[in-house]
Amino acid sequence: LGATMALRGPLCRLLRTQLGTCPGSRAHSVAVLGAPFSKGQKRRGVEHGPKAIRDAGLVERLSQLDYHVHDFGDLSFQHLEMDGHFMHVPFPRTVGRASQLVSGAVSSAVGAGHISLMLGGDHSLAIGSVEGHAQQCPDLCLVWVDAHADINTPLTSPSGNLHGQSVAFMLKELQEKMPDVPGFSWMKPFLSATDLVYIGLRDVDPGEHIILKNLGIQYFSMRDIDRLGIHRVMEVTLDHLLARKQRPIHLSFDIDAFDPCLAPATGTPVNGGLTYREGIYITEEIHNTGLLSAMDLVEVNPILGTSREAVQATAGLAVDVIASSLGQTREGAHMAYREIPTPKEDTEQLRL
Amino acid sequence: LGATMALRGPLCRLLRTQLGTCPGSRAHSVAVLGAPFSKGQKRRGVEHGPKAIRDAGLVERLSQLDYHVHDFGDLSFQHLEMDGHFMHVPFPRTVGRASQLVSGAVSSAVGAGHISLMLGGDHSLAIGSVEGHAQQCPDLCLVWVDAHADINTPLTSPSGNLHGQSVAFMLKELQEKMPDVPGFSWMKPFLSATDLVYIGLRDVDPGEHIILKNLGIQYFSMRDIDRLGIHRVMEVTLDHLLARKQRPIHLSFDIDAFDPCLAPATGTPVNGGLTYREGIYITEEIHNTGLLSAMDLVEVNPILGTSREAVQATAGLAVDVIASSLGQTREGAHMAYREIPTPKEDTEQLRL
Amino acid sequence: LGATMALRGPLCRLLRTQLGTCPGSRAHSVAVLGAPFSKGQKRRGVEHGPKAIRDAGLVERLSQLDYHVHDFGDLSFQHLEMDGHFMHVPFPRTVGRASQLVSGAVSSAVGAGHISLMLGGDHSLAIGSVEGHAQQCPDLCLVWVDAHADINTPLTSPSGNLHGQSVAFMLKELQEKMPDVPGFSWMKPFLSATDLVYIGLRDVDPGEHIILKNLGIQYFSMRDIDRLGIHRVMEVTLDHLLARKQRPIHLSFDIDAFDPCLAPATGTPVNGGLTYREGIYITEEIHNTGLLSAMDLVEVNPILGTSREAVQATAGLAVDVIASSLGQTREGAHMAYREIPTPKEDTEQLRL
Repeated sequence: LGATMALRGPLCRLLRTQLGTCPGSRAHSVAVLGAPFSKGQKRRGVEHGPKAIRDAGLVERLSQLDYHVHDFGDLSFQHLEMDGHFMHVPFPRTVGRASQLVSGAVSSAVGAGHISLMLGGDHSLAIGSVEGHAQQCPDLCLVWVDAHADINTPLTSPSGNLHGQSVAFMLKELQEKMPDVPGFSWMKPFLSATDLVYIGLRDVDPGEHIILKNLGIQYFSMRDIDRLGIHRVMEVTLDHLLARKQRPIHLSFDIDAFDPCLAPATGTPVNGGLTYREGIYITEEIHNTGLLSAMDLVEVNPILGTSREAVQATAGLAVDVIASSLGQTREGAHMAYREIPTPKEDTEQLRL
Repeated sequence: LGATMALRGPLCRLLRTQLGTCPGSRAHSVAVLGAPFSKGQKRRGVEHGPKAIRDAGLVERLSQLDYHVHDFGDLSFQHLEMDGHFMHVPFPRTVGRASQLVSGAVSSAVGAGHISLMLGGDHSLAIGSVEGHAQQCPDLCLVWVDAHADINTPLTSPSGNLHGQSVAFMLKELQEKMPDVPGFSWMKPFLSATDLVYIGLRDVDPGEHIILKNLGIQYFSMRDIDRLGIHRVMEVTLDHLLARKQRPIHLSFDIDAFDPCLAPATGTPVNGGLTYREGIYITEEIHNTGLLSAMDLVEVNPILGTSREAVQATAGLAVDVIASSLGQTREGAHMAYREIPTPKEDTEQLRL
Repeated sequence: LGATMALRGPLCRLLRTQLGTCPGSRAHSVAVLGAPFSKGQKRRGVEHGPKAIRDAGLVERLSQLDYHVHDFGDLSFQHLEMDGHFMHVPFPRTVGRASQLVSGAVSSAVGAGHISLMLGGDHSLAIGSVEGHAQQCPDLCLVWVDAHADINTPLTSPSGNLHGQSVAFMLKELQEKMPDVPGFSWMKPFLSATDLVYIGLRDVDPGEHIILKNLGIQYFSMRDIDRLGIHRVMEVTLDHLLARKQRPIHLSFDIDAFDPCLAPATGTPVNGGLTYREGIYITEEIHNTGLLSAMDLVEVNPILGTSREAVQATAGLAVDVIASSLGQTREGAHMAYREIPTPKEDTEQLRL
């Protein structure tokens, strides 16, 4: 992946900038990028997420949707030896380096005309995934589906974990509120607060709450979904992001957005999450825009399920969400039929 | 059942045609017809559905609703020896004969003034159930609650299974698209595409999708329910079928319309199904029309549950759906009380 | 508790009557009153509810919300020896005495400026809890969240159990319909039918149904919630109770309002109940009025769960409902932050 695509990427970017386009559902190929990384948080096991999602039949499902699926395998992450805490933030250099690696892979995949599909791993990886996507598509918008806002700064984070700070690294408006975290000097904030919508929030830290409010970020908590219904939530979301102009969508989907009864095998479950149908509805609507350009599916942690069934349910749900984002429908699709077939005389011969 | 009712049926039909009426909630009796049949699909066990539903307390529940319950026991189906495949369709003659038997029983039950309640067995039996109902009530309309459209023709069916083709046998508009399947020469298509509404679809084959679209059939997929809400879905359903004139309703309810977490013991479960409350709401609305004339409850398969609890939950759900269709309410009912009773002096005597 | 608060109660009442106020969210302290009582129904175990709810972390959770939590421990109930049936009602004197005890405790707690939180025990205790609350706040209104209406009189009750008759003892309009049940001579009906709203009903007895209808009580069955959505239900509820004037709210929450899959450890579960999110939405809306003055959380029965997990889920749900009633939010809260913190130069020193 790395070398070839790294060369091809900038060229594609040049061409695309001129054409004013980025891939979306017009793309007929998907690049699968496994990201077995867990240092953005403290629980072991989320590095096995990519394998669990693949084992649940990801590639077969996407192939049924008539995509060329390019599975580039897993990225190789290194744990840096000299990587002490920054304030109370563990492993900043290791996490920064991992996101840099993801950034390059996503940028190359998108530059080569694929829809990028990053399989986490923990949600700190989205820093790199969205940044790499933005290298190719600077006008992208971001839909963040999650129980958590992941928008703490190191100064507000109760835990210090970087998977709860991903969005803070991206936002231009937070630049002055962010200390210089070692490991992240390779990137600059690139996203405006108006280019982001949250769906599914239900466990928001005090510091996150004031950031959301002060920056006027559009978010839909579970309470908002209860009030408005998922249909209206998606209307407002897409209107907010796309009304002025059509542009590429980055969908960053944390499996913990779902209710724990559906996605038990994850690190920070919170009761009262999305139903299966709400999750599928969100992704159907994203797909129907024709603008999905890159996606993350993160925080599937196979060692946290209390049973084999719990793990399979979580990983199967991840595959369903990805397939729906990429065009699987509940209403059926014509495919292969232009009209209802009519029996011919010689079907008589097929009788016993 | 057979002989007596077969004689009485046509006479009743004559009278009813003149009166322009068919039974509905005005009927005070229910005919329970067990249909232990499974050759419309390939998995064993669904023939035990009638016993499972009865064991879950069906007759007691209906009796509490002040119905006369006539349980006619189980129909006796035969497996025909000489019954090879037609195209890739297995057991066509056996399935055709079974539906013919069901047709006669349902026609007789409705003709005798009962609401007909057919307990499957697989959903291929609905061919006979709806056909028999239509013999007595030619202007009936059909509400098909199911994860699947069951509207493949033998030429579009991926599996060949006849339980996925039931509706194709009924529709006049598909007559030229249907080959002459052996076993079904006893019947002709009798239903117009406008007389049918689907609720709950979420696994529609490509050939089915083009049939639904070309025939302009009114359907509500789970996505539609997510968008509109079950309240609005039922408004449109009943308006579509009954706005021009009041007429008998046939409700054909496949237990797999429910989410697999509620109805696990069934042959073709699909994630993202109806909630318990949506299923009950559908049937309450059907009951409230006062026009329910016949009902099928199919695809309860007791050997597919992974536990005794799973089977009991599925069968209990079937009983709840049937009871709700026949008037059990969540809001309570007066029954037996015309006014709030007032204590009499002599209740004092009841004290210790 | 008893002596001191009983003395302080009337004085506070006097002052409060003059001031025209009762506690609500303006109160910064909560009085926890355990009521380990089960004689209002026939199943054993609900007397262990208070312990189960405390063990699920109640006090810690409330403390995180910046309340002063005063846990007054458990009330001591006596089983009266000479307490035969009245009509078919078991233990009337024991239940009456228990409610009298609860009434005094709640009255004292509210009089002392606390929000009263009564942990049941069975729902017969609400007779005393609401009555005691009304002593201090005669203009209170009552929100009753429950699968059952608990409004049978001894003359209509199918079971005789007093936990299904609580509301009948409270209502002025039913005074002539109530026999003189021994054990309840200490109280008089004190609530008007217009001051009460039900949410969650789905198992209403015939006698209850005619009472609800004849008295014109505002209720929302699960069917109503299906039709209107919980958002609209709460709008109408609060408008009905508070539109004319702001007044104290008593929330009496039976855990069986929730679906049995969420709250299995309870005595009379009924399918098709509230979702987790609906329950939280109800309590968020109650909290947001700023008028919650007393609350009951009843019918957690730890010995009826089929597993340790089932009991913990039920008790944990009870804690979530209480915390949400008292201000825990899904959207986050500022607390402690007035603005987004900005890094200082010397955070540089924190680097490795």
